Amino acid sequence: MSGLAVGVDIGGTRIRTALVERSGRIVKHQSVPTPAALQRHEVMQAVLRSISWMIAQAEELGREVKGIGIGSAGQINADTGIVEFAVDTLPNWQGTPIRPLVRELYEHIPVWVDNDVNALALAEKVYGKGQEYSHFVCLALGTGIGGAIVESGRPVRGCFGGAGEFGHLSVNFEGPRCSCGNYGCLELYASGTSMARLARVELEKAGRLGQAEIDRYSAHELLRDWAAGEEPASIAMTTVIQALATGIASIIHIFNPQVVFIGGGVADAGEALLTPLREETHERTSPKMSEACEILPISLGSRAGVMGAAAQVWTEGGSKSIVNMDGV
Amino acid sequence: MSGLAVGVDIGGTRIRTALVERSGRIVKHQSVPTPAALQRHEVMQAVLRSISWMIAQAEELGREVKGIGIGSAGQINADTGIVEFAVDTLPNWQGTPIRPLVRELYEHIPVWVDNDVNALALAEKVYGKGQEYSHFVCLALGTGIGGAIVESGRPVRGCFGGAGEFGHLSVNFEGPRCSCGNYGCLELYASGTSMARLARVELEKAGRLGQAEIDRYSAHELLRDWAAGEEPASIAMTTVIQALATGIASIIHIFNPQVVFIGGGVADAGEALLTPLREETHERTSPKMSEACEILPISLGSRAGVMGAAAQVWTEGGSKSIVNMDGV
Repeated sequence: MSGLAVGVDIGGTRIRTALVERSGRIVKHQSVPTPAALQRHEVMQAVLRSISWMIAQAEELGREVKGIGIGSAGQINADTGIVEFAVDTLPNWQGTPIRPLVRELYEHIPVWVDNDVNALALAEKVYGKGQEYSHFVCLALGTGIGGAIVESGRPVRGCFGGAGEFGHLSVNFEGPRCSCGNYGCLELYASGTSMARLARVELEKAGRLGQAEIDRYSAHELLRDWAAGEEPASIAMTTVIQALATGIASIIHIFNPQVVFIGGGVADAGEALLTPLREETHERTSPKMSEACEILPISLGSRAGVMGAAAQVWTEGGSKSIVNMDGV
Repeated sequence: MSGLAVGVDIGGTRIRTALVERSGRIVKHQSVPTPAALQRHEVMQAVLRSISWMIAQAEELGREVKGIGIGSAGQINADTGIVEFAVDTLPNWQGTPIRPLVRELYEHIPVWVDNDVNALALAEKVYGKGQEYSHFVCLALGTGIGGAIVESGRPVRGCFGGAGEFGHLSVNFEGPRCSCGNYGCLELYASGTSMARLARVELEKAGRLGQAEIDRYSAHELLRDWAAGEEPASIAMTTVIQALATGIASIIHIFNPQVVFIGGGVADAGEALLTPLREETHERTSPKMSEACEILPISLGSRAGVMGAAAQVWTEGGSKSIVNMDGV
C-alpha cells in the first residue's frame, strides 16, 4: 500500500486533521473544536492528540506515514515551524514552536508547517484549478482576511513568513484605525466581522429593526438581505464591494497574476458576490493587467486546508512539484 | 582585457548608455535627451544610435562586448523583450519590440530587456546595499511611481512583467480617479507631479502667491518650503507622507521584506523626507513586520539605472549571482 501524509489545519474555530494520499484523496478525516479559551498549550495538545489519532489510524490500515504537514493561522516561519506572529483568530498563538513540539513526539517523521492560506494555495496549485497557472494569488475572506501568493510556481513568503497579509492592505489612509496600527485596512471593510459592522450602521439609520436584532445581525444575514434587494444591505454592500475591488485591483497591479482565487466563508456567497466584484475590479484595473487576470472562486471545497497542509509532505513545503503520483 | 556589457536606461526624459565592467565599474557613459515627441520610432532610433556608439567605443578600447542589457520605463516582458504596456512617462511605447529590434542589428550579441525599476533593483542586489538582503522592495518616486520586488533573491515579475506597479496601489478607494481606472492611487499623492498639485491647492487657499507662481510651483519648491517650515507646504506634505506611509505599510504587510529602498527624484530630499516617513510608516505597520524592515535610500547614485541594466548580462537577467568577478 502507498504511503500517507497527515494533514492538519489549525484555525480559530476548528482543528481539522486528515490522512491524505499523494493523489489528494482523503482516507480519514477528523474535525474537533479549537479549545474555547484558545490558550496556546491547550490548542497544541488538541493538535497533538489529533495527530496521534491519525497515526494510529494509519497503522491500523497498515500504511506508512511519510510525513506530517500543518497549516496554521498566523504568520509562520516555514523554516523553523514556529509562529512568528499571531492573528486575531488565534490571539495567544505567538511563539508556539509547532514543529519542534511535533518532532519531539515523532522524531522519525518529517514535519512541515506553513500559514493556513499558504496551505490553501498549495492545495490549489497541486490538486485544484491552480494547476493551470504559475502566477496566482489566494484571498481568504473569513472572520479576518488572509492571503497567499504563488509567483512563477513558488510561494512568496517574505523574510519570516509574514507575506500575504492582504487584510492589512490599506484601502483608505484616512479610514478607521486598525489593530495593526494602520488606517482603513481591507479587513475593516471586507471581512465577515466588518461587513456585519457596516451593515449594522445602515440598519440603525434605516430604523426598521430593533436594537437586539441589529446587534446580532451577521454577514450571513447581510448577504441574504442584499440578495433580496433590501436597501440598508445594498448600501453596505456597495462599500464592501468598492473597498474589496480596490484591494484586488491593487493586488493585480502589484503581482500581475493570472488568477485571483477568492475563498473563505464570505466567498460562499458565490456568483452573487463574484459577478459584481469582477465588474468593479475590472473598472478599477488598467486594461492590460485586467485582461490578463481572472477572478475565480477557489476550486477545492472545505477540505482544501488539510489537503494543502498534507501536500507539503509530497512537495517539500511547496518547493517541488508532485511527480510520479502512482505506485508510491 | 576583460569583456564589457552595454547598459541602457530608457526613460521619459533621458536615454542613458554605458559600458560597464562585471564589477560595476563604468568605463564610458553617455546621456542624450529622449526625443521630445516621444514617438516610438524616434525613441528606438535614439536607443540604437547610443548602443552603436557604445559598441564602437568598446572596439576602440579593444574590449569585447559580452551583451547588451536594457532597462526601460513601462511593463516589459523580460522573456520577449517587448513593451507590454506603456506608462505615462513614455506613452507611445506600448508594443515596441525592443529586443527583436536590437537583435536585428547585433545578432551575435545577447540582449536582455527589463523594466527600469527592476534594473534598479538588480543594481542594488548586485552592487549596492541590496547585496546584504534576499527580500527587498524598491520604490522609485519620480514624475510617476514605479516599483520592483526581490523575493528570496529572485525578481517578482508577474505573468507578463507587469508586477511592482506600486504607483497604482490605491490608498483611498474613495479618492480621485486615476488614469488606470482605480481611485486614490499612491501616484496621485506621492509622485512629484501629484505632490506639486497638492501643494498648489494649499497655496491657493493661503492666497499669498500670485496665480502664475502657483501654476509653476514644483515638487522641488514644495520640499524646499516644507524644510523652511512654511504652512501650505507643511499641510500638503502631511497628506503626502500619510499616503506614502500607508502605501509602504501595505507593501510591508504584503511582502514582509527586510528593506524598502526609496529612490527617484523625490527621494533626493534625503533624510528630511525619510525620517518622518519612517516614523509614520512604523506607526502604521504591525510591530513584528515593522521591526523586521528598514526603510533606506537606494545606495547607488544616478548611474544605478545603467549599472543594473548592464548587470542583466552577467546574471542572465537577474536569475544568477555574479560570481568570479575577476579575470573575466
